[in-house]
Amino acid sequence: MNRVFNFCAGPAALPTAVLERAGLELADWHGKGLSIMEMSHRSADFVAVAEKAEQDLRDLMAIPDNYKVLFMQGGASSQFAMIPLNLANGSGKVDQIVTGQWSKKALAEGRRFADVRVIANTEDNHFTSAPTQSELALNADADYVHYCPNETIGGVAFDYIPATGDVPLVADLSSAILSDTLDVSRFGMIYAGAQKNIGPAGLCVVIIRDDLLGKAQAATPTMFDYKVCADHGSMYNTPPTYSWYLAGLVFEWLKEQGGVAAIAAANHRKASHLYQFIDGHDFYANPVAINNRSIMNVPFTLADSRLDKLFLQQSEAAGLLNLAGHRSVGGMRASIYNAVSEVAVVALTDFMTDFARRHG
Amino acid sequence: MNRVFNFCAGPAALPTAVLERAGLELADWHGKGLSIMEMSHRSADFVAVAEKAEQDLRDLMAIPDNYKVLFMQGGASSQFAMIPLNLANGSGKVDQIVTGQWSKKALAEGRRFADVRVIANTEDNHFTSAPTQSELALNADADYVHYCPNETIGGVAFDYIPATGDVPLVADLSSAILSDTLDVSRFGMIYAGAQKNIGPAGLCVVIIRDDLLGKAQAATPTMFDYKVCADHGSMYNTPPTYSWYLAGLVFEWLKEQGGVAAIAAANHRKASHLYQFIDGHDFYANPVAINNRSIMNVPFTLADSRLDKLFLQQSEAAGLLNLAGHRSVGGMRASIYNAVSEVAVVALTDFMTDFARRHG
Repeated sequence: MNRVFNFCAGPAALPTAVLERAGLELADWHGKGLSIMEMSHRSADFVAVAEKAEQDLRDLMAIPDNYKVLFMQGGASSQFAMIPLNLANGSGKVDQIVTGQWSKKALAEGRRFADVRVIANTEDNHFTSAPTQSELALNADADYVHYCPNETIGGVAFDYIPATGDVPLVADLSSAILSDTLDVSRFGMIYAGAQKNIGPAGLCVVIIRDDLLGKAQAATPTMFDYKVCADHGSMYNTPPTYSWYLAGLVFEWLKEQGGVAAIAAANHRKASHLYQFIDGHDFYANPVAINNRSIMNVPFTLADSRLDKLFLQQSEAAGLLNLAGHRSVGGMRASIYNAVSEVAVVALTDFMTDFARRHG
Repeated sequence: MNRVFNFCAGPAALPTAVLERAGLELADWHGKGLSIMEMSHRSADFVAVAEKAEQDLRDLMAIPDNYKVLFMQGGASSQFAMIPLNLANGSGKVDQIVTGQWSKKALAEGRRFADVRVIANTEDNHFTSAPTQSELALNADADYVHYCPNETIGGVAFDYIPATGDVPLVADLSSAILSDTLDVSRFGMIYAGAQKNIGPAGLCVVIIRDDLLGKAQAATPTMFDYKVCADHGSMYNTPPTYSWYLAGLVFEWLKEQGGVAAIAAANHRKASHLYQFIDGHDFYANPVAINNRSIMNVPFTLADSRLDKLFLQQSEAAGLLNLAGHRSVGGMRASIYNAVSEVAVVALTDFMTDFARRHG
C-alpha cells in the first residue's frame, strides 16, 4: 500500500492501521454480512461500538463521571452558535479570549446570541502569542469564558489553562484534543471537531459538565440542545454512525500506542525536532513566541517567499503533502497530529535541509 | 464476502459494489497515498469528487438550474428547525400536512419557530392513508406548505404532488429520494437525510429554489442558513467529506443501473411482489390504503402477534435482517430501498411462505 506523509491541517492524517482495518471490514463488519454504516443506530452491535468508543475516550482523557460525552453532528462552527444558545443563560454576558482566526470566528457567531466581551486579544502582534493569566480581564458576571487553546492557522497555543474561578471555562480543542495530557476538571466544556485527532469530518465531540445542561435559550433548535443530546445518549436522531465507529477505532489505536501520555511524549519529540530545525536554519523562520508554540500546527516561512511555490511543488513530489499555509496567512504549515509519525517529521526536515542547501 | 439481506429502515443497505470499492480505496484513494477522508476539503482532488457528486445528482433527478444543491451536516431533524428559520419569513405562517411520525416531529419543531397550521391530519385512521388534494385546507398566506411524501414508519406515501399554487411546497423526502421519478420543479425545496437511498448517516441533501434563499430569521445560526451554505458551495466550514464521497459513489452506481427510471421500475416490481404476496396470504396483513402504499417501506403484521418474536428470530437466522417494525408501532417492516435487490425481496417472500406454512 502506497502511503504518503500527510501534513494537512484538517481533514487530517489518520493512523494507517485504522484505515487498513476499516477498509477490510467496510462491506462486512465482523462477519455479520453488512457494513457498520448499514446498521440501525439502535442495534445491539452498533450500540456496543458506540458505548465502547465513549468509554475508551473517557479512559484516555480521564473524564470525570460528572461530565457527559456527546457525539454530535457538524464541527466547531456549529458549536460557535450552540455554546451561547446553551450556556449564555444567566447574565447573558460572555468573556472571550481572541488569539487567532478560530477564536475570531467564535466571537462573531457568539455575538449573535450573547453579549460577548473580548478580555484579551493578540491581533496587534499578528496572533503570534497567547496572553498570560494576568493579562486576562476576567469578569465575574460572565456566564462562561471561551477560548481556543490551540489555534490551527497561527500555530499558537496556551501553555497554561486559564484560571476563571467559578466561571465555567469553555475550550475549542479541535486541533489539540488527545495530543497532550489535560485536566478535564478544569473545564466546564471542551469540544473538538473530529477531523484532526479523532476521525473524519462531520462529527464533533463535546465533553460537558452535568450542571451546565438544561438551561438553553428558547430559540435553541432541538438538535442544538446539549441536554436533549445527552438525555438521548447522542441518539435523539440518527447520529453519524460511521464517523462514530471510526472515532472508536482511533481511540483503540491510541490506547495501543500507550494512551495520551505516550502519544504526548511522541508529539513533544516531533515538535521539538521541527522547531529546533527551524530555529537552527536562517533559511526558515517561525514567528510564534517560544512558549506559545503549538505542538500540533507548525507554521514556517522561507527566507525568500518567491520560493514558496517551488518548495510546495518539490515537497509534494517527495511525498510530503499539504504543507501550504492557510490561504489567509500564506507561507508553510506542517500539521503534525497524532497520526503523523516521527518518521514523517524527520522526512520533512531532511527535505527542508536539502531544499535550503539547494536554494539558500 | 458474506452479505446478508438487510431490510433496515435506516441507516439502510447500501449497494455492495459501492461498499467493496470504498473498502478497497479507503486507505489509498486512486493511488494518491492517502484516504479521501484525510484530504483537505479544498484540495483539487476532493473538490472534483464533490462537484461530480452534485452533477450526478442533478443529472439523476433532472434538477433545474435555478435550484441549489446543498450537502449539509446532520439529518432531517436539523432541517425541522432550519426550514422555518429560513423560510417562515413573510407572514410567519406555515401549512403542515400530518401523515405520520415524521411529519408530527416536523410539526412540533416547526411550531417553535413559526405559526404552523395543520391543514390535514390522518392520525384518526392511525396514519394508514394520505389526504387527497381536495382534503387539503390550504391557506394562501402561508410562507410554505410542508409535508412528508413517504412516511418511513407507517409506510404511507402520497400518490400525487400537492398543488399549492404560489406557495412553495417543501418535502421531507428522506426515505423516498431517488426511488422514483419526480418533477423537482413542483417543489420549493426537497431535503433528505442520506442514510436511506444516498449514503451514510450524518449528511443531508437539500435541493432549494434560488428565490427562497437569503431571508432567514435573525435567530438563525450561521450553519443553519441555507444562503450561507449555498454561497460557499456547502463548504462554509469543513463538510462531512467522506459521506459526500460515498454519496457520489452511490450516485455513480445509480447511473450504472440506468438512472432513476430504471431503479424506479425495479422498485415498483419489488413492492408489487411483496404487497401481492401479503394480500394473497391471510396470515399477513398491511393496513395502508392501496393507493398510499409506500414502495420503500412495507409494514406488515402476522395473524398472531405472539409469533412476532419467533418470526424475527427465524428470519434473522435465514439471513434476512432488521425486519422488526418501528418500536412505536410494532409488527414487521421491510424497507426495500434502492440497494435492496429483487433477489432479497423474493428471499423474504420465500421465507414468509415457509413461516406461514409452519405456523399458519
